[in-house]
Amino acid sequence: MNKGTTYKKVKVHFQPDNVGIVVERGASLLQAAIDAGVHITASCGGVGVCGTCKVLIEKGDVESSRSEKLSPEEWKQGIRQACQSRVLTDLLVSIPVESRLETVVVSREIERATKMATGGAGPAEAIATGWRFKPPLNKCYIELPPPTLVDNISDLSRLLRGLKKQCSLNYAGVDPDVVRKLPRVLRSKKYRVTATTLVKAVKTKADKRKPTIINLEPGNTGQKHFSLAFDIGTTTVCGQLLDLNRGKAIAEAMAYNRQIGYGADVITRIAFCQGPGGLKKLQQAVVVTINQIIDELLAQSQTEAKDIGHLTIAGNTTMTHILLGINPKYIRLAPYTPAASFFPPVMAHSLGLNVAKHVHLFPFPSVASYVGGDIISGVVAAGIHQRKKLTLYMDIGTNGEIVIGNSDWMVTAACSAGPAFEGGGIKHGMIATAGAIEDFDISLPDLNPEVHTIGGAKPKGICGSGLLNIIARLLESKVISQNGKFNTDLATNRIRKGSDGYEYVLSRAGETQTDKDIVITEVDIDNLIRAKAAMYAGCRTLTESVGIACADLEQVIIAGAFGSHIDIEKSITIGLLPDIPRDRFIFVGNGSLTGSRLVSFSIDLLDDARKVAMMMTNLELSESPDFMHHYVAALFLPHTHADEFPNVSKRLAGLADIKTKGGLTV
Amino acid sequence: MNKGTTYKKVKVHFQPDNVGIVVERGASLLQAAIDAGVHITASCGGVGVCGTCKVLIEKGDVESSRSEKLSPEEWKQGIRQACQSRVLTDLLVSIPVESRLETVVVSREIERATKMATGGAGPAEAIATGWRFKPPLNKCYIELPPPTLVDNISDLSRLLRGLKKQCSLNYAGVDPDVVRKLPRVLRSKKYRVTATTLVKAVKTKADKRKPTIINLEPGNTGQKHFSLAFDIGTTTVCGQLLDLNRGKAIAEAMAYNRQIGYGADVITRIAFCQGPGGLKKLQQAVVVTINQIIDELLAQSQTEAKDIGHLTIAGNTTMTHILLGINPKYIRLAPYTPAASFFPPVMAHSLGLNVAKHVHLFPFPSVASYVGGDIISGVVAAGIHQRKKLTLYMDIGTNGEIVIGNSDWMVTAACSAGPAFEGGGIKHGMIATAGAIEDFDISLPDLNPEVHTIGGAKPKGICGSGLLNIIARLLESKVISQNGKFNTDLATNRIRKGSDGYEYVLSRAGETQTDKDIVITEVDIDNLIRAKAAMYAGCRTLTESVGIACADLEQVIIAGAFGSHIDIEKSITIGLLPDIPRDRFIFVGNGSLTGSRLVSFSIDLLDDARKVAMMMTNLELSESPDFMHHYVAALFLPHTHADEFPNVSKRLAGLADIKTKGGLTV
Repeated sequence: MNKGTTYKKVKVHFQPDNVGIVVERGASLLQAAIDAGVHITASCGGVGVCGTCKVLIEKGDVESSRSEKLSPEEWKQGIRQACQSRVLTDLLVSIPVESRLETVVVSREIERATKMATGGAGPAEAIATGWRFKPPLNKCYIELPPPTLVDNISDLSRLLRGLKKQCSLNYAGVDPDVVRKLPRVLRSKKYRVTATTLVKAVKTKADKRKPTIINLEPGNTGQKHFSLAFDIGTTTVCGQLLDLNRGKAIAEAMAYNRQIGYGADVITRIAFCQGPGGLKKLQQAVVVTINQIIDELLAQSQTEAKDIGHLTIAGNTTMTHILLGINPKYIRLAPYTPAASFFPPVMAHSLGLNVAKHVHLFPFPSVASYVGGDIISGVVAAGIHQRKKLTLYMDIGTNGEIVIGNSDWMVTAACSAGPAFEGGGIKHGMIATAGAIEDFDISLPDLNPEVHTIGGAKPKGICGSGLLNIIARLLESKVISQNGKFNTDLATNRIRKGSDGYEYVLSRAGETQTDKDIVITEVDIDNLIRAKAAMYAGCRTLTESVGIACADLEQVIIAGAFGSHIDIEKSITIGLLPDIPRDRFIFVGNGSLTGSRLVSFSIDLLDDARKVAMMMTNLELSESPDFMHHYVAALFLPHTHADEFPNVSKRLAGLADIKTKGGLTV
Repeated sequence: MNKGTTYKKVKVHFQPDNVGIVVERGASLLQAAIDAGVHITASCGGVGVCGTCKVLIEKGDVESSRSEKLSPEEWKQGIRQACQSRVLTDLLVSIPVESRLETVVVSREIERATKMATGGAGPAEAIATGWRFKPPLNKCYIELPPPTLVDNISDLSRLLRGLKKQCSLNYAGVDPDVVRKLPRVLRSKKYRVTATTLVKAVKTKADKRKPTIINLEPGNTGQKHFSLAFDIGTTTVCGQLLDLNRGKAIAEAMAYNRQIGYGADVITRIAFCQGPGGLKKLQQAVVVTINQIIDELLAQSQTEAKDIGHLTIAGNTTMTHILLGINPKYIRLAPYTPAASFFPPVMAHSLGLNVAKHVHLFPFPSVASYVGGDIISGVVAAGIHQRKKLTLYMDIGTNGEIVIGNSDWMVTAACSAGPAFEGGGIKHGMIATAGAIEDFDISLPDLNPEVHTIGGAKPKGICGSGLLNIIARLLESKVISQNGKFNTDLATNRIRKGSDGYEYVLSRAGETQTDKDIVITEVDIDNLIRAKAAMYAGCRTLTESVGIACADLEQVIIAGAFGSHIDIEKSITIGLLPDIPRDRFIFVGNGSLTGSRLVSFSIDLLDDARKVAMMMTNLELSESPDFMHHYVAALFLPHTHADEFPNVSKRLAGLADIKTKGGLTV
């Protein structure tokens, strides 16, 4: 930029959020939205190739050019790709329903997860037990004798002597800021103080671990003793405020990860980090998200930020890297090495989090580039490492993770399933928010659909679990065959040929929010088949690697947001989950958040997390010939080998025939 | 301040420094000088009562009012107290010779101290021996195998595995910034890296102490392995650059502590800290001083700041508090409790020091408010804790410190001697810089003086050691009697009555830099007698407290800047040092700096420092009746009890008579 250039400021106002921001003339419209805290879906990270960030320019001018993602009609109406537009004048911008994120799903998530996550009794088989309530963070109130000429040891020595005598505290160290405030705090309430201590080290043995004094407050503040537990997901971030005196969560909140504006999946975000300032921007985005959740947790529980003494986070390897400001570059390049799988605690305040300066952030350890702290956290929460019971733990999603094992051993693998489970790569796919079709039935013999949407709104698209349910029902009703192709002979006008090949019309334009037909195409079905095949092949490769069959699994734990919404029977029908007795399946909701909470309550479990991360053997499926073999075999509904899905195969074979156009039955 | 006020900037130019600064109109002239890095002596800390900060306003206007510290003649000439003047217009200011600090003494200090401090052999009896060369800071070069698909552990795990295998390193932790730079550094020189490790903990046993990885550099940087050792004195700050590969200091530099501008002694500075922003200003002042020394050390040794990995400082309790940003308020209020006597390591960069972000600063532990880390450092350097030899360690100064003991026990006390030893409170006193009278003889029978100044310059005043030498000679020549009063009957015009009572003219106005007579007054002599009485009474109280006599002392170690310049025989003559065999006295120069260096070379000595601080018993002399008794007895030259100074008493009794005005002899 040359000296003397005058920068013109312009105003951009977003609807329906009703939020405005002042930016430099020439700024990116997508960046303006992010800066204003307005969500615009931008799956590809703002490079112009996905077409998800469409907005309508109601007033004012932008500089933009039409790509193939915009039809000439859309262009004429004033629709632009936000990521490809530069602001020229004051603007009024409307974000169409497809580009918006909504919050209905968030409350639904919380409702489902609350029982498990707030410490209510989950299924006895899938929660860690037997741990001592022994948080790494402690508060200790002491009354000290004031100094005299015969006892004029330093303030710090006086404090340490008191802590040893009155709290049996054998300390490891004192943070410099405690020493700085010590003279004032000691004298402000007549030498009555509350010390906050933290066990930082995890490498020494539990009984040899000495705490560090991280804070000091005047008087007795023992009753205000809180910490924060977080699950940092690629899509959503969820946090709980924990009362360490009561050993329970007293508030919970969730928000979309603001990194979504820079790309939908970890790969896009890692790529974004390589641009100038990219890592910093993504780090800021998740920090802002966490701060927003902290604000809400404090408001919900009438708690003050200064009373929070500790913070634990579980996230996948990429999310953890970015939050800590570590470049995740090599995670996406073979041979896929993360910078670290064990992370030293960091000062939360130094990352920009709105907590007191003495608060340490403990990240969960991870196993590999695509098996992260969220999985370790979930495995610890589920107590898999505590029992002999042979367990399969699955977190189904774009980056699906699988763990098999028990207290003796564990193997793990990440399956790159693609975005279909989250509605990505699907013609009318969307993430699971209001208006997404999540359930589906089909009436016989006329083959007309019955759709159910999240929040009961008019249909807007199809979410991942909806897609799974639709395909299972289409298969059961023989509208599609086991190779995922439409039976085009059927006597219905719902099946038709569209721009992507054959498709089935789920909702007519008149019934939808988008005023367009919502369809499911053969390409969509193929995408889901490939996604479920990757997950299932991952399970099979892992079971085979340890010499067991799926039938040997004594317990299958389904974790994660997507997992919470799937129907077991339908998931087995399409071949995503193994065809074993249904009572072996357990849902644990957000296992990652649960684990994050539990380690805040017990250093025993904090140790367990480290041990679990160390005992897990990671298999790189992307380079495994066995995996490719299993994958190809699974590209069928439910599977090429019918005997792997005996119950489903038997049921499908026994289904009623339906009529074709010619009056025949199939 | 009201909105809309326009602040006018004005320029102040200082002579003879030839340094200018732009300040707000209305700013304090003393502050302007400090900000410009120009030294003006301001012993009282800028509150207007000492009159040491006189400057001559050559051009321009200041707002000021005349106090009793300025004569009407001075006022007329344009002389003002800098601390009492506000800048109104552009100024040209001359700093008169009396208000200036000069640097000749600095080089003299270095010359004297070099032999001891740079690791040359000092007297065998007064240096710590038998320690292993085992610095807390280490560098470890390793070559790692690049990751492959079958060996794709995280970068951090790869580094740690390599360090364990190739350097037998069992680490305790890794600093977060190392993880942040890890992916880039590993790959920049083909997985060849140098790790810097630091043993942080001092509480665990030496063999169980695990280092933390604090830095990582590409390639082999093992040959660039440096640390810094500092002595932070109230008046001067001295630093050494240490080559940890060679185990020696390769550069040394000294500078006046810039806090001098805010007050000459620790009490004034503690008071200054209580004003708004006071602590921050003093902290900044010493940080700037240290940075200036670092710059000089780097320039001297052609070293780069990035290759410095560690920093150790020894300072008195107040200096340590202020440098670390801890309010020293309660040090000066009974019962004299410092905030801490053991200080956690802090990040040097966070204090504003110009070193790499990973550099830790290790402060020496102290014993009490007036027995600080400089004394612990000196005692460790002298190896007192290693031997059975009964030792007296003295650091003579405004805040004199005394230690008595050996490897089994140690007692210590601080003596508030007053500023006389540093030329303070003396009519023509000055600190030991160029032009200060440091030695003196008197010719008989005419009683004319022969003076020697530092740097051979024209006399400007009297420094502390000069004062001691003058008084010893005046006593030996019977010009003063044992109660410190002038023999006014003597046949000389050098003794006369002045404004402060009787005085002796050392230099006539024509021979001096100040164009005024330089005299020593009875008040001055009385001040020195009180100072030496405090030190000696401290020794006697301590020896008595442990049931020994001075004659039992097997060794007397004299440390510190003032101590380095005194004459043993003359010091015994006036009763400052005990009258025991002269060969038991040893000078160690800047023992504090030596200790600071030695602990950078050996964690054994670092441990010793902690042990010494813990084993020392502190006696509060200010409240001791025994001390008062010894003090009163010592208010005589050399002492009220002649038998305590048998050799001196004998010598004084045998001296030749001199003539009085009446022709008689005394």
